[in-house]
Amino acid sequence: MKKVAIVGASGYSGEELVRLLLAHPHAELAAVTSRQYAGQTLAQVFPRYASHPRAKALRFSEPVADVLAKQADIVFLALPHGVAAEYAGPLLQAGCVVIDLSADFRVKSATVYKEFYAHDHPAPDLLAKAVYGLPEIYREQIRKASLVASPGCYPTSILVPVIPLLKAGLIKETGIIADSLSGVSGAGRKAELDYLFVECNESVRPYGVPKHRHLSEIEQELSLAAGTKVTIQFTPHLIPVNRGILTTLYLAPAEHFTDANGAAKLGEKIAACYRASYGDEPFVRLLEGKTLPDTKNVVGTNVIEIAWRLDPRTGRLIVMSAEDNLVKGASGQAVQSMNILCGWPETAGLI
Amino acid sequence: MKKVAIVGASGYSGEELVRLLLAHPHAELAAVTSRQYAGQTLAQVFPRYASHPRAKALRFSEPVADVLAKQADIVFLALPHGVAAEYAGPLLQAGCVVIDLSADFRVKSATVYKEFYAHDHPAPDLLAKAVYGLPEIYREQIRKASLVASPGCYPTSILVPVIPLLKAGLIKETGIIADSLSGVSGAGRKAELDYLFVECNESVRPYGVPKHRHLSEIEQELSLAAGTKVTIQFTPHLIPVNRGILTTLYLAPAEHFTDANGAAKLGEKIAACYRASYGDEPFVRLLEGKTLPDTKNVVGTNVIEIAWRLDPRTGRLIVMSAEDNLVKGASGQAVQSMNILCGWPETAGLI
Amino acid sequence: MKKVAIVGASGYSGEELVRLLLAHPHAELAAVTSRQYAGQTLAQVFPRYASHPRAKALRFSEPVADVLAKQADIVFLALPHGVAAEYAGPLLQAGCVVIDLSADFRVKSATVYKEFYAHDHPAPDLLAKAVYGLPEIYREQIRKASLVASPGCYPTSILVPVIPLLKAGLIKETGIIADSLSGVSGAGRKAELDYLFVECNESVRPYGVPKHRHLSEIEQELSLAAGTKVTIQFTPHLIPVNRGILTTLYLAPAEHFTDANGAAKLGEKIAACYRASYGDEPFVRLLEGKTLPDTKNVVGTNVIEIAWRLDPRTGRLIVMSAEDNLVKGASGQAVQSMNILCGWPETAGLI
Amino acid sequence: MKKVAIVGASGYSGEELVRLLLAHPHAELAAVTSRQYAGQTLAQVFPRYASHPRAKALRFSEPVADVLAKQADIVFLALPHGVAAEYAGPLLQAGCVVIDLSADFRVKSATVYKEFYAHDHPAPDLLAKAVYGLPEIYREQIRKASLVASPGCYPTSILVPVIPLLKAGLIKETGIIADSLSGVSGAGRKAELDYLFVECNESVRPYGVPKHRHLSEIEQELSLAAGTKVTIQFTPHLIPVNRGILTTLYLAPAEHFTDANGAAKLGEKIAACYRASYGDEPFVRLLEGKTLPDTKNVVGTNVIEIAWRLDPRTGRLIVMSAEDNLVKGASGQAVQSMNILCGWPETAGLI
Repeated sequence: MKKVAIVGASGYSGEELVRLLLAHPHAELAAVTSRQYAGQTLAQVFPRYASHPRAKALRFSEPVADVLAKQADIVFLALPHGVAAEYAGPLLQAGCVVIDLSADFRVKSATVYKEFYAHDHPAPDLLAKAVYGLPEIYREQIRKASLVASPGCYPTSILVPVIPLLKAGLIKETGIIADSLSGVSGAGRKAELDYLFVECNESVRPYGVPKHRHLSEIEQELSLAAGTKVTIQFTPHLIPVNRGILTTLYLAPAEHFTDANGAAKLGEKIAACYRASYGDEPFVRLLEGKTLPDTKNVVGTNVIEIAWRLDPRTGRLIVMSAEDNLVKGASGQAVQSMNILCGWPETAGLI
Repeated sequence: MKKVAIVGASGYSGEELVRLLLAHPHAELAAVTSRQYAGQTLAQVFPRYASHPRAKALRFSEPVADVLAKQADIVFLALPHGVAAEYAGPLLQAGCVVIDLSADFRVKSATVYKEFYAHDHPAPDLLAKAVYGLPEIYREQIRKASLVASPGCYPTSILVPVIPLLKAGLIKETGIIADSLSGVSGAGRKAELDYLFVECNESVRPYGVPKHRHLSEIEQELSLAAGTKVTIQFTPHLIPVNRGILTTLYLAPAEHFTDANGAAKLGEKIAACYRASYGDEPFVRLLEGKTLPDTKNVVGTNVIEIAWRLDPRTGRLIVMSAEDNLVKGASGQAVQSMNILCGWPETAGLI
Repeated sequence: MKKVAIVGASGYSGEELVRLLLAHPHAELAAVTSRQYAGQTLAQVFPRYASHPRAKALRFSEPVADVLAKQADIVFLALPHGVAAEYAGPLLQAGCVVIDLSADFRVKSATVYKEFYAHDHPAPDLLAKAVYGLPEIYREQIRKASLVASPGCYPTSILVPVIPLLKAGLIKETGIIADSLSGVSGAGRKAELDYLFVECNESVRPYGVPKHRHLSEIEQELSLAAGTKVTIQFTPHLIPVNRGILTTLYLAPAEHFTDANGAAKLGEKIAACYRASYGDEPFVRLLEGKTLPDTKNVVGTNVIEIAWRLDPRTGRLIVMSAEDNLVKGASGQAVQSMNILCGWPETAGLI
Repeated sequence: MKKVAIVGASGYSGEELVRLLLAHPHAELAAVTSRQYAGQTLAQVFPRYASHPRAKALRFSEPVADVLAKQADIVFLALPHGVAAEYAGPLLQAGCVVIDLSADFRVKSATVYKEFYAHDHPAPDLLAKAVYGLPEIYREQIRKASLVASPGCYPTSILVPVIPLLKAGLIKETGIIADSLSGVSGAGRKAELDYLFVECNESVRPYGVPKHRHLSEIEQELSLAAGTKVTIQFTPHLIPVNRGILTTLYLAPAEHFTDANGAAKLGEKIAACYRASYGDEPFVRLLEGKTLPDTKNVVGTNVIEIAWRLDPRTGRLIVMSAEDNLVKGASGQAVQSMNILCGWPETAGLI
């Protein structure tokens, strides 16, 4: 058993980490922090978990790095970008493993960070230390990491389906379009008019067009996979569900095809590529037959579903993915990284 | 006052026609048909309209073309494709104006119809007579029509924003992608498991990938606008709202641009094109400033909202539209055509 | 045409008043106020109404009683309780008619007001002037009123079905229970965590148990109808819909019955009572046959639906009502009062 | 490890049983039946569970009692009432333990069954054998049972909070009112128009007023607790959530109270009664302080939340409960009974 702490445990990602870590077979939730709820028990703040004995005993505390370092071996940071980095340094120095769910250590370049997040990077010296926490791509690096930059929800839904195709040279690195639909929890637990029930229910809307912050990490990782700079089009939309991201990707196959025969031949290569990449992955579900991704089949789980279709009319490859933005897109993936780091079964506490 | 009838008034489009026609200042709802509800009053089948005096008096009847032709000057067909065409012939011959909300007369070629709808066209001789009922494009033709093929919900959300750009030569006719999100009423009032509340709520899913039936009319109309054959990529998704379609269009400008300056110059042309095309249209709302389309702002109205953004990073034009699939995407547009046809104010009964 | 103004036009009731008054045949929307949005046009704040020519011209202003009195003949106050009363005095003195949607003038006793609203009444001298704006009960008084206290959403859903039964002596005045379910717009457009989409969606909860503020006006009006002090049980619940209130009332008939025969005899009296009271009311829909109220059949309309059942097993009368909390429960009812006051058709602008 | 089977595994309760039994530490899911899906794997029918190895191997079969008896030690019947009883007899005779989620064995009297279910009881001789599977009340009887009649969703939400109060004589057995709100999954996975997304979303409605079938088992169990015949008022409502039941109970305390002091004294007795009854129950959560039940805090769990308030204005006791209709209200409770029956920890596979 290792002791774990969550800094910023009162947002939606933090709440989901609480759920996962209370039930984890090898981790003991030793501390949770929240400026807003300091002094209250987990059971008071999250009645949902009140039946768990630990939830009645554990009280939220103020986030103080020194204190946390004594309480926990592993610290999850579920804080806004800019703030997370302030905690990472002291915690690392005190010997903790840090798994950061913010954007602070995902982008390797402080310049790119500033371009997309509009302020100087708060701890540029730590950037080289950070491992991008996408287990399906960086499992070996995560195993040895002390600072994991857990990926964003949109990036996960795009990178998992696209990276193998880019690496295998099956698609062109130009012209990639990602059209994503996200549940409202993706906006965080923020008391803003835009996210009121009445403003979101019976509403669908794009936002952040055309330059969303997540593009920085998406393009970085796609570029690494392609071996050349990749620029993509990305449009996020807000839809009235609590959880879930559905991403539809428009890709140009490297190989030209114009009919069903061509599609069948190319299809075999794509299927083989996905099978080779993800056939044994516990949290990637390659859909077969006529099944298409549906967020309701992944919500509450750490699974990402992937399906694809070749269109002989346009010569394009359409890939679709579905995930729970708070699990595979955030807290579940962070726990998956912890499992790898600690040498536990990768699925511990996740199924 | 003209007498109007609705054949197939118990589906969602039919129900919406009932709402619009009960309140129309120049039309009198003379007959509604439904095999399922024949004998019952409008008030019994649709309690929502029960406070309208006409709703208590008017009873659903069996759909019989001869009888309808005596009851009404204008007949709306809100029937499944294949069935609608059977009624159009006799009604036209009896001197009625027919406004068909099905797909039967939208595609000009019986061959294309068969390719997409998987059965022979039931009345190919009438195809030449039909006018595609998109008022913003075919207003003059509608004025003289006796058979109006009212457009589909997805096509409206795509054609209104794209046609002016194609006609003006501002975008390439290749590589067009339309990513659409539709409320569940788009699937019709059908007792199928897929559309149960529990199956749709907290769910988002693509469907009909990659060859949806609406492609036939979309590509026909885009080709006419472009003066050359246009093939597009189209992905519909089902989202948990009752009404509304949000379409995001990925377009390639004819003019290359790579920075903010280039975008500004091209932007002026696009803005001018839209203003010239739609500045005086009562039902097209060109959004300004930072506002993006949101289905909640058009639901229950005959308005289609349009906004666009140029992305200097990718050189692409993103156009977004929002409409109510049952109003501008179906019944409202059909009433708009009726208004034009009859020489009434185009907005009569629609605002 | 009379000139009307809305003070506090940016909340949900205010927004609904905007909708109704923009389309009203006899009223001209001359002014809208909002501290938050002062300077912006209606079209900017409510894109939904942007297609209306008036919405592009009319700008929100700061709420100043003197200025408003010059701009409008009739002023609607859509403000929080306590604040509304400050505007009523000066506006009345300047000769305006005031229709107040807050609770400030609904309760006739300043003592009861203080008990339920926890602060002194801000204008107790005006209380005697105010007419409770429930047209089905106080039509004649509204006709001559200069200050209308428009009823709350829950009270409307309870008073309309219960008052005729009390007046006719058909039910006991003791033991009344009202169990109400309200859509989230009832909580107002407030940026609070409790009303975020994620907190309301897939959630149902009672609140304000057992002493909700609306009890003060409900019991006042029931007592007046019964001719004796009535105390009721009232439990509101929050449910995940934008609009709509469904109230289920548990009542004790004055007459004992224990079987179907007894129920049939008593049922005739109840039916006759409702028919006599509401048979000619344009906005009360008495449901017949097996139909029960459903909020979806009244949303967007000024109608309240009523159905009732006698239960021979328990000897109780169950009455159920459905209304749109923002229309019949707020802004529609306020417009209905304006219509009466001004001598216009009572349904003007409401159907 | 015991082998278990689910007959009728394709409805919502069946699907939830699949979820719980796939993850159960002591049970092995050996067979699932469904006429509709016979031949398909669990993974094909429920993509949600497709990542579980067993879901790829296990195929739905036709329901044949003899075959099931060889495959499983324990058989769950998730079938409509009337049908379930046909399987119970042969399975019991073959030595299986049967846990029935239908209504067939909940009512002890075949006459009452016929009154409420409108057909003769299909296996009246088995009624005496059945134990009503409410663990908090009948734990000892369940331990020795071979036929468990697992309670309905509404009954659970009413019986758990009311029985201790009746047994302790703290409330009168007359005048009990239960007002319940249920998510749409309670209607089952049935392709009926009433349960389509568009018909349920943005809709709230009562139904089955005033004599719902569940009254038969509710009144039976309340009568047993009270030691005298109890007749209650029960009104179910359909609300637009997938899962969850919220019940508000209006009760008359045996002891008269008229002020805060009286309420405080009586409140101590009620609190003590609930603590004594449920203080150690793993699945009953007695809410403290200002917290009221909220379905979102119990959905997906086997917990029922209870809170109560005394109202000195009316002298009434209001008790509110929340549960997941498919877990504590159906499949979770059935698994809880299995755990008790088999001598496993009662919470096995349920937290």
